[in-house]
Amino acid sequence: MTTAAIVVIGNEILSAKVTDENGPFLARELRTLGVELRRIETVPDEIPLIIDALRRCLASARWVFTSGGIGPTHDDVTISAIAEAFGRRVVLDEGTSKLLRARYGDKLNAARMRLAEVPEGAKVEFHEGYVFPVISLENVTILPGVPSLLREGFTRIRERFRVAPIFTRALYFTLGEGALAEHLDATVARFPSVGIGSYPRFDDADHRVKVTFDGRDEGEVRSAASFLRERVPAGTIIREE
Amino acid sequence: MTTAAIVVIGNEILSAKVTDENGPFLARELRTLGVELRRIETVPDEIPLIIDALRRCLASARWVFTSGGIGPTHDDVTISAIAEAFGRRVVLDEGTSKLLRARYGDKLNAARMRLAEVPEGAKVEFHEGYVFPVISLENVTILPGVPSLLREGFTRIRERFRVAPIFTRALYFTLGEGALAEHLDATVARFPSVGIGSYPRFDDADHRVKVTFDGRDEGEVRSAASFLRERVPAGTIIREE
Repeated sequence: MTTAAIVVIGNEILSAKVTDENGPFLARELRTLGVELRRIETVPDEIPLIIDALRRCLASARWVFTSGGIGPTHDDVTISAIAEAFGRRVVLDEGTSKLLRARYGDKLNAARMRLAEVPEGAKVEFHEGYVFPVISLENVTILPGVPSLLREGFTRIRERFRVAPIFTRALYFTLGEGALAEHLDATVARFPSVGIGSYPRFDDADHRVKVTFDGRDEGEVRSAASFLRERVPAGTIIREE
Repeated sequence: MTTAAIVVIGNEILSAKVTDENGPFLARELRTLGVELRRIETVPDEIPLIIDALRRCLASARWVFTSGGIGPTHDDVTISAIAEAFGRRVVLDEGTSKLLRARYGDKLNAARMRLAEVPEGAKVEFHEGYVFPVISLENVTILPGVPSLLREGFTRIRERFRVAPIFTRALYFTLGEGALAEHLDATVARFPSVGIGSYPRFDDADHRVKVTFDGRDEGEVRSAASFLRERVPAGTIIREE
């Protein structure tokens, strides 16, 4: 099973100055690509906390994505943290340095030069029409925090993560969870390879519970949905997707 | 400094079936209350991962909030996880049990009875006009995952977390981060008690960088903003908030 984890880095998220868009965006993308997202950790711009989150994510997932903390200012510490987590030095990437010299000339100060910093051994890819490089180190992809840049960078590399799709079915019930639970338990026990979720609503929607079935094997997913459908009282399912 | 951490529990968030609203909501509320949010961990409906996240959050923050995993179905495992993290048994809360018996009578099955389960020693509070109890154990507040219920539950208890407010100022620059960085570094060094963030934009907004200043001491926050304002070239700040 191909798995992923995300580290969202930024005081601005935790202090609610901005609402994170990058975690939800990557979650949707990974889902579409068939990759199972195992965790998202949102941490401040602090090297020890980033390293700690990164190590945990590396231990629990095949691919790790970081969002944020890339740039020339004091609060941009992601590159240093990733280098330290892998026991690497921070070095200047040659290709990026050249581009910066061409762009800034005499105005290439120490801060701007930080844009060329990468963990030693990192892969730095430039893609046509996208000014920022996509930086990766082993199985960590290092993405910028500005949502438009993150989306554009990820879009350039997304296909390399694609695996077998996850099939999904959903049943919508007029029954509540209290009445459904025993039937769900039986379905969960019968179809261990299918991920089954139960999501109640307490508003005036046309259903009280949505039950979802996820799995790599379409036949199993369909069978699990049928199994539950046949157990519940007639007329309690108002929709199937 | 009063700190908090959030554990968001739910496969539906990680599989992008729903976008988490509860983390951002609690982040905004905590900010308003003057509480510093230190981390958000989003984990699946799996007891070992919930316990692990909970322990890390407890070690790094004064208050911990959990969102989700409360209810009568197989994927509702938060109560068990919290009980285990604290070395407590899961018991039936007497007040909730009474309410469930009154509501369901003969239809009170095992699944519905799970709604009365709490970690032993938990505090269970009912608030007028809100059908769900707010459950807490020591410094952990256990909130439901349905956003409307979480908001309503939190609103009933929010004032108990209020501390001294965090003051904030913001300057909007037409300069880029590369030109600002040295002045920011000087400001950061001069005002260690002020949290300073730098947020670049790459769209057609009227500014290229927003710099924020956060702190408990309003005078220090204002001084830090003034210090930076006086260092940068005239005419490069287009707005102050």
